[in-house]
Amino acid sequence: METNAARLQESMEEMARIGATPGGGVHRLTLSDADREARDLFARWSKEAGLSVTVDEMGNMFARRQGTDESAPPVMTGSHLDSVPNGGRFDGALGVLAALEVVRSLNDAGTPTRHPIEIVNWTNEEGPRFPPSMLGSGVFAGAFQRDFAYSIQDATGKKFFDELERIGYLGDLPCRRRPIAAYVELHIEQGPALITEGKQIGVVEGIRGLTWLRITMKGERDHAGPTPMHMRRDALAGAARAISAVREIPGKLHPDLVATVGEVNVSPNAINVIPGQVTFSVDIRHEDESILKRAEELVLQAAKDAAGWEGLDMEVDRIGGSSPMPFDAWITATIDDACMKEGCSSLRMWSAAGHDARYAADLCPTAMIFTPSVGGKSHAEDELTTWEDVFMGCRILGRTILSLAQQS
Amino acid sequence: METNAARLQESMEEMARIGATPGGGVHRLTLSDADREARDLFARWSKEAGLSVTVDEMGNMFARRQGTDESAPPVMTGSHLDSVPNGGRFDGALGVLAALEVVRSLNDAGTPTRHPIEIVNWTNEEGPRFPPSMLGSGVFAGAFQRDFAYSIQDATGKKFFDELERIGYLGDLPCRRRPIAAYVELHIEQGPALITEGKQIGVVEGIRGLTWLRITMKGERDHAGPTPMHMRRDALAGAARAISAVREIPGKLHPDLVATVGEVNVSPNAINVIPGQVTFSVDIRHEDESILKRAEELVLQAAKDAAGWEGLDMEVDRIGGSSPMPFDAWITATIDDACMKEGCSSLRMWSAAGHDARYAADLCPTAMIFTPSVGGKSHAEDELTTWEDVFMGCRILGRTILSLAQQS
Repeated sequence: METNAARLQESMEEMARIGATPGGGVHRLTLSDADREARDLFARWSKEAGLSVTVDEMGNMFARRQGTDESAPPVMTGSHLDSVPNGGRFDGALGVLAALEVVRSLNDAGTPTRHPIEIVNWTNEEGPRFPPSMLGSGVFAGAFQRDFAYSIQDATGKKFFDELERIGYLGDLPCRRRPIAAYVELHIEQGPALITEGKQIGVVEGIRGLTWLRITMKGERDHAGPTPMHMRRDALAGAARAISAVREIPGKLHPDLVATVGEVNVSPNAINVIPGQVTFSVDIRHEDESILKRAEELVLQAAKDAAGWEGLDMEVDRIGGSSPMPFDAWITATIDDACMKEGCSSLRMWSAAGHDARYAADLCPTAMIFTPSVGGKSHAEDELTTWEDVFMGCRILGRTILSLAQQS
Repeated sequence: METNAARLQESMEEMARIGATPGGGVHRLTLSDADREARDLFARWSKEAGLSVTVDEMGNMFARRQGTDESAPPVMTGSHLDSVPNGGRFDGALGVLAALEVVRSLNDAGTPTRHPIEIVNWTNEEGPRFPPSMLGSGVFAGAFQRDFAYSIQDATGKKFFDELERIGYLGDLPCRRRPIAAYVELHIEQGPALITEGKQIGVVEGIRGLTWLRITMKGERDHAGPTPMHMRRDALAGAARAISAVREIPGKLHPDLVATVGEVNVSPNAINVIPGQVTFSVDIRHEDESILKRAEELVLQAAKDAAGWEGLDMEVDRIGGSSPMPFDAWITATIDDACMKEGCSSLRMWSAAGHDARYAADLCPTAMIFTPSVGGKSHAEDELTTWEDVFMGCRILGRTILSLAQQS
């Protein structure tokens, strides 16, 4: 099938102006004003393309193109329009807007499909504002309770529910599983594998498991001057020791394991006060459940040792996680086939980033298509996928969707 | 001389209600609304005690009791009314209000003094909001330029000058050195020495030198999932390694040396993003200049090693510091004499905390009086000096001031 490269690029560029940062990225936190603006634009474009747009009670948006057999379950595709703080312009938006381009191109060609096609914009894929991530798809798939999601607060105490209502995206469609024929998501790789191997498309066979922890160390807040070193219980000294240890754990366990401390909050965070309390996050990912579990044990042991060294109390909060999820062989074969027909190079791979496709896979045959990330960079303002790769990703998505939507 | 214990306690308790925190401390950041309220109360009480109140262009407040010889330079005493975030109720306020009690008691007894007595409330002793600390006394003594102080911004970008004007304490008295006969400051110890040794009064012989650094490590911001460990340049991993090392440096160098990392700021500080930049503070204190210098070298070497290990760029900002300052033997002998006459136990010691007396010592004979801090705790809501010790501190201050103010 043909897609319109110029139109896709224009749409990507217009979307990237919403929440644009001086550094060339986007700052479009979930349920912020910028998120609302992005949603409004997607809804307008969808309606202009003749799609019916519905919003569910988690704010997930579904833009539906009718099929010739309206009793057939839809083929679903899409991604998310929210971003991390000062994130990139391709992460998420590519999957939504390429899906829109596929539908626009089907319209241009007057091509009907047997199955309806639904483009989804999932709420709160990213999660930094309202952890855990993939909340919209998670509630949809039954992994989280809706009311749990509603009650989550951001760092300033604002509730998910109130913000959802405030931006006008509290829909009345129930957020729960329903029949879906297949789910395919196009996304940037966010890692260096495709660039390093010189391949244009990643055929994603599954999503690595993820563990999110928040560890709090409590010591004794005191004046930095008169308190002798041997009398201190410095929460930051303990946390720093633990964070250093976390950095070294993957190297001891498995080459594909990653462990990251991305967030640290120090109290009171004043130059002349010994910190009384420090909270830090740990993000651990691997495709093998047993290695993920072992890594978590090592992280907790390292934190416990560090806390003990400094005489600190420690609390561990398991704030999120998902087990490894292999994708569907029928869908990945369909993507392989599309690559062969387009004559583009591809690589079979596992995703180390979490995606809404993780939860979609609980509901229906699912897989993902990756495009290369220059320098392997993502969640950063200089995140980049070349237009050439963007267009190829869209063509592969189009062929895959068309093939799936014509199945009897 | 007699002082009125009940009146002092009442004043301390009323002052502690300004900026009071649920945990029993005070949150009275420099040039905040709470700081203004504390200043207004001090000014009112001073005027009620017959003192003339003047404010200089740094917001330093001077409440003056006339001497019989108005050509004689004043004996100055006082401290500060600002606090660290969620700090204690004794730090600073004790020195100002005990001085006020001394003057009230002299008034009650109708006791004239040859020298005028001036009670000072120095602006921005603490410094967390507008670093460096001891800014008001520092400009007064010529250690900082007034316009440098005016230009300092807090974390939200508000300027010192604008905030000083906003709270109504931009005075017109020039802030510069003038003749002072002697300076004595009563303060809580903020450390465990007096409690540990079982002494009621600390006779402070000098102030340790202080070095303040701010170290920034710059790596590569990236997605926590797909970036392999060996390709990362994680600014937090490097900073954590450096912070751990700072904790160990004093133990290798000198038992009285202290080194503290109190402040850490991580960018972007999101759970699923590898930190691209981390800035942390280092606070180093010792009474021997050469050991202070050696400690700074070791800190910088440790930071450099940590940055190199993780492949980070590093920047060092020397944001403040002061060399060790021995106090005046005549004043400490006067304090010793007061302790002997009151029959209270005392300990000669150096202060590890910085105080405005550090800069006063550049101008005139200076010393300090310490009262015990329960548990050695300070810069914390549960900072405590018993009332018994507060009253004794006030009596020692009174005897010392009276003795100095009667000198010919």
